[in-house]
Amino acid sequence: MPAAVAWDGTLLRLLDQTRLPAVEEVLVLSAASEVAQAIRDLAVRGAPNIGIAAGYGLAMAAATDPSPAALEDAWRELRDARPTAVNLARAVDRVRRAARAGGAAAARAEAEAIQAEENAASDALRAHGAALLAGTKCVLTHCNTGALACGGRGSALAIVTAIEGLEEVLCCEARPLLQGARLTVWELARLGLPHALVVDAAAPGLIRRGEVGAVVVGCDRVAANGDVANKVGTYPLALAAQAAAIPFVVAGPTSTIDPDTQDGDAIEIEERDPEEVRRAGGVLLTLPDTPCRNPAFDVTPAALISALVTERGVASPVDRDSVAALLS
Amino acid sequence: MPAAVAWDGTLLRLLDQTRLPAVEEVLVLSAASEVAQAIRDLAVRGAPNIGIAAGYGLAMAAATDPSPAALEDAWRELRDARPTAVNLARAVDRVRRAARAGGAAAARAEAEAIQAEENAASDALRAHGAALLAGTKCVLTHCNTGALACGGRGSALAIVTAIEGLEEVLCCEARPLLQGARLTVWELARLGLPHALVVDAAAPGLIRRGEVGAVVVGCDRVAANGDVANKVGTYPLALAAQAAAIPFVVAGPTSTIDPDTQDGDAIEIEERDPEEVRRAGGVLLTLPDTPCRNPAFDVTPAALISALVTERGVASPVDRDSVAALLS
Repeated sequence: MPAAVAWDGTLLRLLDQTRLPAVEEVLVLSAASEVAQAIRDLAVRGAPNIGIAAGYGLAMAAATDPSPAALEDAWRELRDARPTAVNLARAVDRVRRAARAGGAAAARAEAEAIQAEENAASDALRAHGAALLAGTKCVLTHCNTGALACGGRGSALAIVTAIEGLEEVLCCEARPLLQGARLTVWELARLGLPHALVVDAAAPGLIRRGEVGAVVVGCDRVAANGDVANKVGTYPLALAAQAAAIPFVVAGPTSTIDPDTQDGDAIEIEERDPEEVRRAGGVLLTLPDTPCRNPAFDVTPAALISALVTERGVASPVDRDSVAALLS
Repeated sequence: MPAAVAWDGTLLRLLDQTRLPAVEEVLVLSAASEVAQAIRDLAVRGAPNIGIAAGYGLAMAAATDPSPAALEDAWRELRDARPTAVNLARAVDRVRRAARAGGAAAARAEAEAIQAEENAASDALRAHGAALLAGTKCVLTHCNTGALACGGRGSALAIVTAIEGLEEVLCCEARPLLQGARLTVWELARLGLPHALVVDAAAPGLIRRGEVGAVVVGCDRVAANGDVANKVGTYPLALAAQAAAIPFVVAGPTSTIDPDTQDGDAIEIEERDPEEVRRAGGVLLTLPDTPCRNPAFDVTPAALISALVTERGVASPVDRDSVAALLS
């Protein structure tokens, strides 16, 4: 399986996630603007992997043109490529600081350090989450949180692969862009884990009927109070899990926690192209030019989250104190 | 606009809802087995319209072959065409009774009476619902509950068209078969109502953000205690409405109430072809042969429903007594 993000010291190779599962095409990028475009296009996605890719993008910029103005332009373009995840801003800020202090070599080393940290975080949070959910027979997950989204083996999906006694994974399709149907199913099939795909709308009803032992999802941004922004459709799963009294577990590296965002309502929610809603797999599903709302994320209040699993340990209950403790 | 269900005394014309909105094709049917096939294929859909079409199907059978055995075969095939809605079973039971007592002419008259009753029910429940929701600026609805689904102008969508002061309708797409994106958008555009389409997963987050004043949905079956089976995705909307303290209104003719079904857990939930989940608009969205779960309906507990609007009036709160009162 080609890696989602591969760096050879000069070029960045991204498995084009917009083409999966039908086509496994690797994009070879050599400039920050190409990386920014790949982030905007969702060729690379998942908060941690966006940060990793953006870090390499800025390292490439520092190597190409060492002028402060060029570094600043590349930093800004990468930082603005997607608004919701904090990993992106944090990664390019780190690499800019390194470039200013030590030039291109330092920038490259910093970008490589970011990826190494994310890989280690995946391994650590996987162990914490698997311990928490041992014995769960059926886990439901949403969107894509595997190696395609995060360093290492991913976040929520990394945990799913390590749960002792697990018999089945239910996977939501994640309209509009179908990261579950396209990417998580592709990863689960390669991992050999028994799974079934379900439309997003049907998942809460299956939870209500007692068919799901736990819900495990990733996160795009965690606010200081533990509210979580994640792919649209996360919030209804949390409501259904609470109503069914099953665990609702959010997994992500601490790099997705933003202590400067006080709560979920302060998180900017990206509103994307209506054409994503009008189409699936390229095919028009409705009348042309139908007005659409297309928020990419929703906010799940901390009170609905049983546990926040990070590489540094587990916050449970999830509140301002337990989240702060993870960062201290 | 061609009628969803049109009867000329001999032939049944159905607007093929599987082809909308791209193609407006009318199926001309002359036999009960063709009607059963159209029901199974979802060419005609919506609990009341399924009942109306099935009634005409059995009337055609009675006219074609007056033998008790032929009537019985047609009755069974129509009754088994879809399992969840009670309207279907009730309609063919009524027409069979009429055919046994008075032959083909009586069967035809009974089928016509069923349609007339559904048309009148739509007008009456529309008035009750509009009074309940007057002044609501933004209503969210799910699936399709307009003239394509029910007699007259429909159920929930009929109400939506009559709310004084309404500024916008948000419409969920209703995966997997996209009745919202394909059918409700088509009806709203023809009605000239400002609207926006949203993926099912995103709707609860918009409710949480305060963008929705009320949720209005139809129902495929109402149990004696007020639990409602409706298109998958209804239950999460009800959870979100409760959390946001906005009205969650279910609309349907009393023909959808089944006093013999004690509660929601006793409602048989149809599990449909996995290929519906794997595809949208005919295009494969995931790996071929991916296992899928595809329940067509979910159950919303009565406690989450603010009001049940029928042609006979409004049950609120929704419980065993208030539902029984509607039927008395």
